Amino acid sequence: MSAQKTATASSGALPSKVGITVFPGFEPLDAFGPLEALYMLSSNFKLDLYVIASTLDPVYTGTNDPQLNKAGSRFGVNIVPTHTYETVPDDLEVLLVPGGAGAAAPTIAPTVEFIRRAYPKLRYLITVCNGAAVAAAAGVLDGKRATTNKLYWKMITASSPNVNWVRTARYVVDGNCWTSGGVSAGIDVTLGWISKLYGEDRARTVANIMEYEWRHDPNWDTFAYVHRDDVDVFGGGVAFD
Amino acid sequence: MSAQKTATASSGALPSKVGITVFPGFEPLDAFGPLEALYMLSSNFKLDLYVIASTLDPVYTGTNDPQLNKAGSRFGVNIVPTHTYETVPDDLEVLLVPGGAGAAAPTIAPTVEFIRRAYPKLRYLITVCNGAAVAAAAGVLDGKRATTNKLYWKMITASSPNVNWVRTARYVVDGNCWTSGGVSAGIDVTLGWISKLYGEDRARTVANIMEYEWRHDPNWDTFAYVHRDDVDVFGGGVAFD
Repeated sequence: MSAQKTATASSGALPSKVGITVFPGFEPLDAFGPLEALYMLSSNFKLDLYVIASTLDPVYTGTNDPQLNKAGSRFGVNIVPTHTYETVPDDLEVLLVPGGAGAAAPTIAPTVEFIRRAYPKLRYLITVCNGAAVAAAAGVLDGKRATTNKLYWKMITASSPNVNWVRTARYVVDGNCWTSGGVSAGIDVTLGWISKLYGEDRARTVANIMEYEWRHDPNWDTFAYVHRDDVDVFGGGVAFD
Repeated sequence: MSAQKTATASSGALPSKVGITVFPGFEPLDAFGPLEALYMLSSNFKLDLYVIASTLDPVYTGTNDPQLNKAGSRFGVNIVPTHTYETVPDDLEVLLVPGGAGAAAPTIAPTVEFIRRAYPKLRYLITVCNGAAVAAAAGVLDGKRATTNKLYWKMITASSPNVNWVRTARYVVDGNCWTSGGVSAGIDVTLGWISKLYGEDRARTVANIMEYEWRHDPNWDTFAYVHRDDVDVFGGGVAFD
């Protein structure tokens, strides 16, 4: 496509079965940033999506927690799962784990348990934001290099001391675990993953169709500095006034 | 919040009723980029979301059109509407219109009709990508400056000659119509809108929580140049090989 081919795709069969865990209070862009990039890819490469949750009931992205939703807003969307953690095929190849307020709530327990059970058969695990904390709670990041969002860095990393946390990183790859920074960083890790498997030209094409200025360098992260005075608790540090 | 206040919020009552039109084949990030930014805002400012469609049946983001989905992928998510075009309250204040392949399909007709009917009572209309073509088809952009995505620029603008299309723009504001470029540009127009109504500090805080490098200047658009050889038909120009 372009004259300058800067990277070639990995060899080997490309994965086609992609799952995403959804749970109450998952962060919309954590999920739909990566899903957008993969959706663009899926027009030319066979990809099937499994939307996985505890039950088949719609999953709401918003939160009613008054500490987080101080204004009493009703600002979420209901997403319909296609499979439960019990019914999803066990030949899933890629698993996306978004974060969000719900990733730090007690209702995350079944998702943690699913990741623990599913990980040994996965080819790739991709986490966004504090989705890394969910994967860490499942033990699958123990001894691995990983990153997470920078706003709640201290809280998240303190709760998972067995992970080799990397602060100044838009995303980190260690083995088959691709972990990214907060929210929007999920787009960059997904483009990086597409680049690795499908070639950089394809990743660039996907980014361009999305009219997204790809943060291409995984080792540079503006927000490691923006959030240098990161906060210790959810809801405690996002001061608007 | 920051020492340097570069813009102040608009005066007047802030809007609280936000609607988004969803239709088969709407582009996920067109919707969930703006919704993410508004969700962040909604923790401190009362905002209620109305997810509006032709019926209350779940709306699928993917497409089975073999010209667009060449690989035969099954890569969409089902979203649950909260209201139909008939039942949504008529005091809606803000309407978001995403684009996507479905915005160019015959099934978009009820959405066009809804925008035509709803627009006179709206305080703000925000479009993303070829959501502008849907608004243009409803006639509400006639005589106004507007932008849309750059990949399908010729096709979209040719079909709506009564709009004063602005090519090199991440987003354009004319009166109460905020129109943006392709997909990711929806995040920038929403941050711009937040900045105008709630002040730049709040918009910056939202962008930082999202760990998103805000494309702050509406008059600069990388993709007006990246897609300088834009294509004439959907599915015809996105060459991967």
